[in-house]
Amino acid sequence: MKELTIQTSSKTYPVIVGDDCLTTLADFIQNQLQPISRIWIITDKNVAPLYLENVKNQLEPYFSNILVTVVPGGEHAKTFSVFEQCHEDGLKANINRKSLILALGGGAVGDLAGFVAATYMRGIRFIGIPTTLLAHDSAVGGKVAINHKLGKNMIGAFHQPEAVFYDTKFLYSLPEKEWRSGFAEAIKHALIQDGSFYEWMLENVTRLDNINSDKLTYIITKGISIKATVVKQDERETGIREILNFGHTLGHSIENNLGYGKITHGEAVMIGMLFALKLSIEKCGLTFDLNRFETWVKQLGYELSISRCNIQIQKLIESMKKDKKTTGKEVTFVLLKQIGEPITMKFSEEELLHSLMNYFEQF
Amino acid sequence: MKELTIQTSSKTYPVIVGDDCLTTLADFIQNQLQPISRIWIITDKNVAPLYLENVKNQLEPYFSNILVTVVPGGEHAKTFSVFEQCHEDGLKANINRKSLILALGGGAVGDLAGFVAATYMRGIRFIGIPTTLLAHDSAVGGKVAINHKLGKNMIGAFHQPEAVFYDTKFLYSLPEKEWRSGFAEAIKHALIQDGSFYEWMLENVTRLDNINSDKLTYIITKGISIKATVVKQDERETGIREILNFGHTLGHSIENNLGYGKITHGEAVMIGMLFALKLSIEKCGLTFDLNRFETWVKQLGYELSISRCNIQIQKLIESMKKDKKTTGKEVTFVLLKQIGEPITMKFSEEELLHSLMNYFEQF
Repeated sequence: MKELTIQTSSKTYPVIVGDDCLTTLADFIQNQLQPISRIWIITDKNVAPLYLENVKNQLEPYFSNILVTVVPGGEHAKTFSVFEQCHEDGLKANINRKSLILALGGGAVGDLAGFVAATYMRGIRFIGIPTTLLAHDSAVGGKVAINHKLGKNMIGAFHQPEAVFYDTKFLYSLPEKEWRSGFAEAIKHALIQDGSFYEWMLENVTRLDNINSDKLTYIITKGISIKATVVKQDERETGIREILNFGHTLGHSIENNLGYGKITHGEAVMIGMLFALKLSIEKCGLTFDLNRFETWVKQLGYELSISRCNIQIQKLIESMKKDKKTTGKEVTFVLLKQIGEPITMKFSEEELLHSLMNYFEQF
Repeated sequence: MKELTIQTSSKTYPVIVGDDCLTTLADFIQNQLQPISRIWIITDKNVAPLYLENVKNQLEPYFSNILVTVVPGGEHAKTFSVFEQCHEDGLKANINRKSLILALGGGAVGDLAGFVAATYMRGIRFIGIPTTLLAHDSAVGGKVAINHKLGKNMIGAFHQPEAVFYDTKFLYSLPEKEWRSGFAEAIKHALIQDGSFYEWMLENVTRLDNINSDKLTYIITKGISIKATVVKQDERETGIREILNFGHTLGHSIENNLGYGKITHGEAVMIGMLFALKLSIEKCGLTFDLNRFETWVKQLGYELSISRCNIQIQKLIESMKKDKKTTGKEVTFVLLKQIGEPITMKFSEEELLHSLMNYFEQF
């Protein structure tokens, strides 16, 4: 079991990672967060049958009358109507400002439950209990949100949790697709900040169905540490934090155009990263063995072609222009001068059209 | 024209008060807030015909393509569906993180537009342009919210504006009912913090249809100063800020039970203050000339009877128990030991029932 400390300008909190670390949750709440009027678990219909009883069993000796809200799975949790329903559940159950939300699930549940926590009675406390590898990214940093049909994560806030409990045992039952989704963010963290971590992954992770507990804890803590270093410098995404967007400008646009849930977040980001790496080589002089990268990620099972998606390039560009980080007519990409050395670069619509057409022809 | 400075832990900003102070708005934005990608005015259907052109005229020489969203009047602006519609308007118009919202209207528009600003792309900047006397209270302090059918202001955030421009000329066209609504909050500020301001009001304000510009600017800046002092110490309402809730525990409950819009906020708060003053005399030994107070506020046109409302006392208590400041089975009231010296006191359901029945018999 490993403990990291996340520091932001608004809050400092622990992230606990490891097999069975959830057994320490009740103690943490008892010792660190009292008074607690009531516990409110928000989880989704996929996670509830697997882990809800486990979590409730840990807490029921100490906390009576736990409220549970079960929301739809995946991005379907992040709608206005689910958000409203959560508030209704909370109000009906007399959840108040001294109550504590537990966000039990993947990134989508974390985003939704975190946004409910950010806005319920103008903000109550929450703890993240991620159940996917992907959530190693979203569970840290305090970005919470729901989606709008015109764009992902468009309505949200910055609201830091009181703690994150990352029980790695939860991850072993994930389907391989979910491993791929999460591992893409770990690769992103390595590429933008830590070349040696990237090399380590190339050598030590050749398939995703046999990562042992030690390797997994290492990947998660390393990824979270990198993210925490960035977030510490820029909690509210006014500057350096945007480097975390590497691969996401195109990635989000693909997710948005396919319809949420048709492709996993990490798989879309992987396509976005490959595109950003190509652009980095062409525009920023990045020295990088792209062939080795492609071979490696294909071996891990990533699908790099998006022609199958039947997405019109123009539509991709339109939704990139709606990205939260876009503030003019040009679209900002995070690129790499070197591994570990990200920069941002703006592209006009024409340049993008040209580069994307080249990309599509190849994949 | 007077300028106050509001300090909170998250932001420091100016409040400009006076006849025609709006003429300085465009300069302020140009000099203090650039870069601005676009201006987005959110106003309501009652305010738009009166002041929208004026505000647009000030800005159009400097900012092209101003987006305007007109929402329903009063508390009808503070619904989930209006909130969602605002986000849709913003996204369709490519409002981005460098855009600026102007909240033009009364307290309800300020609450809604502020909450849109707090959550649009995880938070963008806004300026408050209050058009009612009541908004002297809500425009300062950063509390923004929408309503839930189970309670007022239940979904919201703390999000401070970049500035507040309080053009007192806007106020002269208000109906007397709105003057009463706003003046109740000014009386509240005096009672909780400043006995001499209260005495000044008793002597200088004997009717609400003839307050001149100097008196008005004095009342507004005094009220805002008192509020700012409290907010400075406790931005997120974890302690002393709750004294601003004087008169509001019962007041909100009356609004909630009558249905929003059936009674103005300030008129409901006045009933709540009278109740709190009676409790203060009975339970905290407050020395206060309640008869003089009653005579004065009746002369100003306040309706103090709530029997006409046909509200069941039990329902009032139920919704007080749902108040955001309530964290147990008891209901917390802000009372006064002396004028300017507030304290909080908890009451059981039985005690409340008894006190409210006494109150109802009298009024």
